[in-house]
Formats: sequence, structure tokens, C-alpha cells
Amino acid sequence: MSRVTRIPVDDLRAGPLDLDAQTSRHVARVLRLAPGDALVLFDPEHALEATARVVSVERDGVRVVADAPTAARVRAVRQVTLLQAIGKGDKLDAIVRDATELGVTDIVPVETARAVVLLGDRAADRVARWRRIAIQAARQSGRGDAPRVHLPRSWGDAVADARPAGTLALCAWEDAEAPIGPLLQGLRPEQPVVLAVGSEGGLTAAEAAEAAAAGFHLVSLGPFILRTETAPAAVLGALLLLTCE
Amino acid sequence: MSRVTRIPVDDLRAGPLDLDAQTSRHVARVLRLAPGDALVLFDPEHALEATARVVSVERDGVRVVADAPTAARVRAVRQVTLLQAIGKGDKLDAIVRDATELGVTDIVPVETARAVVLLGDRAADRVARWRRIAIQAARQSGRGDAPRVHLPRSWGDAVADARPAGTLALCAWEDAEAPIGPLLQGLRPEQPVVLAVGSEGGLTAAEAAEAAAAGFHLVSLGPFILRTETAPAAVLGALLLLTCE
Repeated sequence: MSRVTRIPVDDLRAGPLDLDAQTSRHVARVLRLAPGDALVLFDPEHALEATARVVSVERDGVRVVADAPTAARVRAVRQVTLLQAIGKGDKLDAIVRDATELGVTDIVPVETARAVVLLGDRAADRVARWRRIAIQAARQSGRGDAPRVHLPRSWGDAVADARPAGTLALCAWEDAEAPIGPLLQGLRPEQPVVLAVGSEGGLTAAEAAEAAAAGFHLVSLGPFILRTETAPAAVLGALLLLTCE
Repeated sequence: MSRVTRIPVDDLRAGPLDLDAQTSRHVARVLRLAPGDALVLFDPEHALEATARVVSVERDGVRVVADAPTAARVRAVRQVTLLQAIGKGDKLDAIVRDATELGVTDIVPVETARAVVLLGDRAADRVARWRRIAIQAARQSGRGDAPRVHLPRSWGDAVADARPAGTLALCAWEDAEAPIGPLLQGLRPEQPVVLAVGSEGGLTAAEAAEAAAAGFHLVSLGPFILRTETAPAAVLGALLLLTCE
């Protein structure tokens, strides 16, 4: 299936635009676009997109000319924030990719008692990496926006700040008894959702209590123990597909 | 969190049992169980489980004594069959793992125009591998059963045979216009589901037509293009969580 080539750019405006070095290499060497070829530019931060045409392919860069940007056609319809405890290794990479495909709008990496803690430069590097992954996942899934990836926060701060009025706040906890099903079925169209998920080791009882005190529903995701990467995919998948009417 | 050690075995019966070489190594060297330690044996094919105790740990094997087996406490509640086109590389490994966690009961690898085709011994090797992955995923997710992994079939045969009466048959197709949401919301408790998903390249229009002719609903999974591994996780996650009441 041939699809239109979609290229993410910052600050999309009508007129000539020089793609950055990495994107230029991708366009010239992998996609092998040539002068005259059509593509779509999208600005994931502002959810804008524009048709464009390649005007020159040089050793040091690709220049395109963009038409007037319009609001991105395909974008998240519901505000869904994922508060995700930071797992080991590259687990959060996969979670960011899946969550982007499944329509999340904000991702907040959180530090819990049993999660990995990232300090200083390492946190900034990882957040930059997750933002790149989110933009690429948006490109591949045809989304014209991309989720915002926030700086890591402590569990307490993240759950305390997560609930504007009217939001359905869910905290997946393996010791919870209330099933998530009825809450999902009672969700109103366009009602914002916040979902909090622990890391491999789960959440402590104290962390679950903090979430409950902040207004989160502590919910069971069913009889099976889900990995930290499967849990958000299951919930975000359910939210996406139920919204899909 | 300490959880009881769960070990998969074939043909579980009460009484003494010698674990196979690989399981013995795992029990002795990784889990470091010693005589007198308790564990749970489960027989995923027959959905049975039994408490047991280690009686000896020798160089060449571990012997345990099992109590009388009972029906597994945690098992799939709904019949859910996944007809999954075979993707490149190890994509189906990840899909089998996720689908097991999310409660699928049967996995049928299918050959489509755009999927990878496995022939002869290679198919048998891969199926054996997927069965091992399913059993390990069942162990980790606390399931006392494991999905049956069937031999690969052609798309035409798989969709033609997939629909006993009363089953909700869904075929995810990116050109479908009918949203999946209302069908999920109208699902009856314990109604069996068959879900058919293409590979990276998607399904051809002819394949979608074959599924429709066999009684499948051709459904859209929403505005975003999901990868072949994200699509089943989203649908199976939605089925699991909506059933979770």
C-alpha cells in the first residue's frame, strides 16, 4: 500500500523550508524523494499539516516548499494522560510508542518506590528520546499531533495534580477489587481520562492510597497479571476503541 | 512482592513427579528452591493446578510431590480466538505473549497475501516456539490455562471455519468504515469472539471480502494506523477490560 510520505517538522509555515540534516538524509537516502515529489509536512506540537513539494536535494540538505498549513485531519479526540512509572531498560520506549498509536495526549514518566529513578542529565536525555519516539510513532500511525512527554515527576506530585474537574482518573492496581469495566462503559464522549500505571514491581499500598486520596479510582484490570507495558496498551486500546463510533 | 512459584507441567497428577531437565535447572538454579519448599504446578493444556513440595534437588533433576489437582482458579472466561497473519521476524512472538496475558484462548497463525509464509519444518518449529511462549506467558500472568496455538492455515480456510453460531466475528481492516465500538459495547457476557488481524502490509480487499462472506464484521479500529502487534493488543485489551465486571 503506498501512503503519502509524512515528515515531522517544527514550526510549520507556508513557503520554503530547509529540512534538518537527519530528516534530509531520511528523505534523500531512504525515501529517495526527488525534486517535484509530493509529501505532507506535519507539526506535531501544533497539530498542523501542509502538503509540500521537494524543490532541491543537495548533499547537505533537502529544501521543500509548503502550502498553507491547516489543522491536522487525524488527531487525538479525547484528552488522555498516562502517568507511567519508569520501568527498567527500554520498557518506556515501547510504552511511548504504543500509547502514541493508541491516542494518548500526555505522557508523564513518574518515579515510584519500585520504579527506576532518573536524575539530572539522564532524565533530560531520556525525555528527549521519548519525544522523538512519540513523533515517529505519530508519523507512522498517521496522527497529525503527538503526545506531550513531560519531565519525570514524583508519584505524589503527579497524582495530586492530575485531576481537573470532570476527568475520569484511573489507577491500575493489582490489589484493587473494583473492576475497570463499568467505569469504561460509563465514560462520556470526550470526557478526559488520566490513567496511572506502576512499574514491574507494582505500586505500594501507600502509593495506591495517595492516588485514592487524590480522587483516583483504584481499579483491577482483571484476573491476569499484566506486565507494565501491557497494562497501558490494554486500557488505552479499550478507550480508543470504545470512543471509535 | 513475593508470589508463589508457578511451574508448568504436562499431565498433572497427584503424587511424585520428576520435572524435566530444563524446568529442573530453572527451579534449582534460578529460583533456588530446596527440599521442603512449596510451589504450584499447573497443567495449562487441561487447566489444572496443584500445590506441591520439592522433595529432592539432584544434579540431574528435581523431584516434587503434588497434591490432588483442581481446576485452575484463574483462567480465560470468554472464548476468544485470534486469527493473526504472520508478521516479519519475531512479531508473532510478542503477539502470542500479549494475547496470552490478555486472555485469548486460541491463536491461529494465518497466511495472507502480504504475510510471511512458513513451510514444513519451519512452521512446526515456530508453532512449538509459540506454544512455549504462551505457556511462559500464562505462568507469568497467573493464568492456569494457556491458549492453544494451532498450525498455520490459509486465510480462506481460517475465516471459513471460524464462526460457530453465536460468535462475534471481527476482522480489523484499515479500509473498513464501521467502527468497532458499538459491537464491543453490544457484546454479551461470555459470547465467544473471533478476531482476524492482518500483517504489516494489511489485508487485501479480496481477503476482506472473503472474511465478510464468512460472516465477519469488517471493522475500523479508529483514526490511527495501528501496527500489526498493537491492533490485537488493543482489541483483546478492550475485550478483557469490558468483561472485567
